Amino acid sequence: MKLEQIASLVSGTLEGEGSIEINGVRGVHDAKEGDITFLMENKHLDVLKKSKASAVFVVKSVEVSIPQIVVAKPDLAFARLIKELHPEPRPEPGTHSSVVIGKKVVIGENVTLSAGVCIGENVSIGNDVVLYPNVVIGNDCKIDDYCTLHPNVTLYRNTEIGKHVIVHAGTVIGADGFGYTLDEKGYHYKINQFGRVVIEDFVEIGANSCIDRAAMDTTLIKAGTKIDNLVQVGHNCTVGSHSILVAQVGLAGSCTLGHHVVLAGQAGLADHVTLGDQVTMAAKSGSFRDLENNAVVSGWPAVPKNKWKRYVTTLPKLPDLAKKVKELESRLREIENGLNDM
Amino acid sequence: MKLEQIASLVSGTLEGEGSIEINGVRGVHDAKEGDITFLMENKHLDVLKKSKASAVFVVKSVEVSIPQIVVAKPDLAFARLIKELHPEPRPEPGTHSSVVIGKKVVIGENVTLSAGVCIGENVSIGNDVVLYPNVVIGNDCKIDDYCTLHPNVTLYRNTEIGKHVIVHAGTVIGADGFGYTLDEKGYHYKINQFGRVVIEDFVEIGANSCIDRAAMDTTLIKAGTKIDNLVQVGHNCTVGSHSILVAQVGLAGSCTLGHHVVLAGQAGLADHVTLGDQVTMAAKSGSFRDLENNAVVSGWPAVPKNKWKRYVTTLPKLPDLAKKVKELESRLREIENGLNDM
Amino acid sequence: MKLEQIASLVSGTLEGEGSIEINGVRGVHDAKEGDITFLMENKHLDVLKKSKASAVFVVKSVEVSIPQIVVAKPDLAFARLIKELHPEPRPEPGTHSSVVIGKKVVIGENVTLSAGVCIGENVSIGNDVVLYPNVVIGNDCKIDDYCTLHPNVTLYRNTEIGKHVIVHAGTVIGADGFGYTLDEKGYHYKINQFGRVVIEDFVEIGANSCIDRAAMDTTLIKAGTKIDNLVQVGHNCTVGSHSILVAQVGLAGSCTLGHHVVLAGQAGLADHVTLGDQVTMAAKSGSFRDLENNAVVSGWPAVPKNKWKRYVTTLPKLPDLAKKVKELESRLREIENGLNDM
Repeated sequence: MKLEQIASLVSGTLEGEGSIEINGVRGVHDAKEGDITFLMENKHLDVLKKSKASAVFVVKSVEVSIPQIVVAKPDLAFARLIKELHPEPRPEPGTHSSVVIGKKVVIGENVTLSAGVCIGENVSIGNDVVLYPNVVIGNDCKIDDYCTLHPNVTLYRNTEIGKHVIVHAGTVIGADGFGYTLDEKGYHYKINQFGRVVIEDFVEIGANSCIDRAAMDTTLIKAGTKIDNLVQVGHNCTVGSHSILVAQVGLAGSCTLGHHVVLAGQAGLADHVTLGDQVTMAAKSGSFRDLENNAVVSGWPAVPKNKWKRYVTTLPKLPDLAKKVKELESRLREIENGLNDM
Repeated sequence: MKLEQIASLVSGTLEGEGSIEINGVRGVHDAKEGDITFLMENKHLDVLKKSKASAVFVVKSVEVSIPQIVVAKPDLAFARLIKELHPEPRPEPGTHSSVVIGKKVVIGENVTLSAGVCIGENVSIGNDVVLYPNVVIGNDCKIDDYCTLHPNVTLYRNTEIGKHVIVHAGTVIGADGFGYTLDEKGYHYKINQFGRVVIEDFVEIGANSCIDRAAMDTTLIKAGTKIDNLVQVGHNCTVGSHSILVAQVGLAGSCTLGHHVVLAGQAGLADHVTLGDQVTMAAKSGSFRDLENNAVVSGWPAVPKNKWKRYVTTLPKLPDLAKKVKELESRLREIENGLNDM
Repeated sequence: MKLEQIASLVSGTLEGEGSIEINGVRGVHDAKEGDITFLMENKHLDVLKKSKASAVFVVKSVEVSIPQIVVAKPDLAFARLIKELHPEPRPEPGTHSSVVIGKKVVIGENVTLSAGVCIGENVSIGNDVVLYPNVVIGNDCKIDDYCTLHPNVTLYRNTEIGKHVIVHAGTVIGADGFGYTLDEKGYHYKINQFGRVVIEDFVEIGANSCIDRAAMDTTLIKAGTKIDNLVQVGHNCTVGSHSILVAQVGLAGSCTLGHHVVLAGQAGLADHVTLGDQVTMAAKSGSFRDLENNAVVSGWPAVPKNKWKRYVTTLPKLPDLAKKVKELESRLREIENGLNDM
């Protein structure tokens, strides 16, 4: 691809020779000849200067000998170019002979139903959907246009999935929420979970994650939210739009998250916790309290990140501190005794 | 359903008009007209009074204008009614043409074997069992009456499952325990795991969980225990009856849990830990020590919950405490110096 | 199996009657008549003396009445005997009629392709490979000799797996790494992940784990490494050879681990962390900093294990310590006031 074509693709301003050929994309630390790279912060300018990159996306033109494309968001331009150069391959449309389809199923145009796919009754599948091998769709599900479900995904009955949703292999959507009550003998009596899961447009869900259906209403993942692998979303949760749940995060039941929330890896929420918009929780943190808009927290139980950083630095000195307090007390007692004797 | 029928269903005492029609069930905060709700604690009585609920389950009759059903356990009555109104749907009995069945397989009556199900050799399947699509059953397994295995569940060879067991999608039972020893070159040498998994009656296991088979004996999940999603149970564990393992809990090898144990989300046990009966471990806690009957613990390493609550409140003040100790020491030194000069 | 045959199998020195028949293997605490057991530490010698074991592997001959086999590594001899007595069963070679195979697929000799297996285009499968039911292999994958993939495993396109690799049920290798950048509207824009996963020889991966493919290069699991269940390995990680990742461990993106690293259960690494060789991280620990060769750490954030052990012992006393400091200050103030009055 010629550099001038790339500039036009990302609507950037080209500075330098536009006729050169770009063969690849790479971060500034690894860029090779023929690569285009990108520069977000000037602190990496020296790395760029030493690199063999043949071109660079920048916010503002910098002093380098290679051609530059000036754009508002160099990383976004880079991602757009990657999508152009490395589009996600998709299998040919068509229905494999082994596919099992229930009654009253409506299937759109340009749909791929791979080998081993099982579709229940009363299901609606939009246009341009890809179901990879061994995907299982329960009764009464609705999958809108441009969705991709990777191998071995399971959708329980009555799940609804918006447009442009990607679900990675092994993920389970709509399994029973975890709800029991004790009976007279002290045995756990199952509370039948008759709610459902709704996933809005442009959501992506990683591999082997679980999103449970609501006890009686809806577990809801709002538009544009991205969920990583091995994440647990309990029944009746609402995850706001454009949020990020990193791998191994766990949400207990009935949590409500605002938009643009970020939960880093292995973080967790107790049940019925509400997080405001743009809350950020650090890796391994957990909260059993609601958090306000824009809160940035760490630790378990979670506290403001700066507070956490300060006390975890002090923690290893705690035994010495305890010793010191003991010592101070004995010195103090000595003085007290001395003063009493005066 | 008429209210008098509901009263009879739950063996409760009706107070008020029994002929009214109940259309739905909802918690006291969300109840709408036509709904029946339930009241566990009188602190929610005001909420009930303001709600549009048409009837209520109570322990003792309360002063409200709507009809009441008095029962010993209102939440249990509520769950029983839900089961009546929203029974778990089950697919028609029968064997799909794509099902693969090995030699010496015995299958009971009223069994559903869905598309893509694979059953190994020498397997026994009881009556009224449902295997959803793409379930894989290894050789020498035994599945007793009234079990439901959701899509893409895998049972490794020689697994035994009692009556009324539910296993949710993607769960793996009987994979090799994680056992190695170092060989002469410092490489990990696999210790073949030739034990098995036994799951007793009325156990329910969530989605994408893993229960490893024992090295040489049995990994055992006792009757009535409920396991959530993404839970890890290591080889040779015994989980006592009527216990609860919430999502993302991890048990290392050879743990033994008593009955009615509760491990909250993301909790963990080191190997060879024994928990007594009715132990409760809070979310994200972990223990490498045995815990006695009725222990209630939090934190990592786990301590009694009250202790944990006290010190985590103090933690954010730790840097100030350290500063204060330093200040006290310097003030003390000043006094000491002053006294020496006297 | 006769004891003299066992001695010869493990190249050990037999002391005692070699003609006795050994029927089983068991740990020293559980050994029964007819069993052979092993002794690693002399502190268990008394247990051995009381046990009913019929023979024992030892490092150096001990004073017991039963026959002994002296070997350098009794546990390894034990594991070798287990492998002999309980070899992993493998299904007959052959291709089930339901298997779906794409174009340009090369398959070696002695391969088992079970029911429901789907293989994409341009795939190479070596000799003596076993694919259990419903395994899905994407396009352009390469699986070398003697691999076993258990049911419902998914390999995304372009994954490469070395010799003697075992992958347990439900595991997903090569799903998209978790990479996004914000677009002009504040929406997450997907960075297409066009890299791959390479798994070297003798790696074993547990059930329902996830190893994401690299953004543009390779996620690499080096030879001999063993990964447990429900483990997350993010894109672009390199896990060194002969390492151990215990259940529910999570590695964020671009981590690099040396050889013989051990991460215990539920441990985690932030992105771009580098661990030296033979680093050990305790259960539930986490690090966002690099760690040097041979580091042994605990806690979050991780500190040297001994330090952690000391301060977690002090933690429960923290509220009392805070109280004591307050008391010391008031006593000190009293003295100061007294001295001022003098």
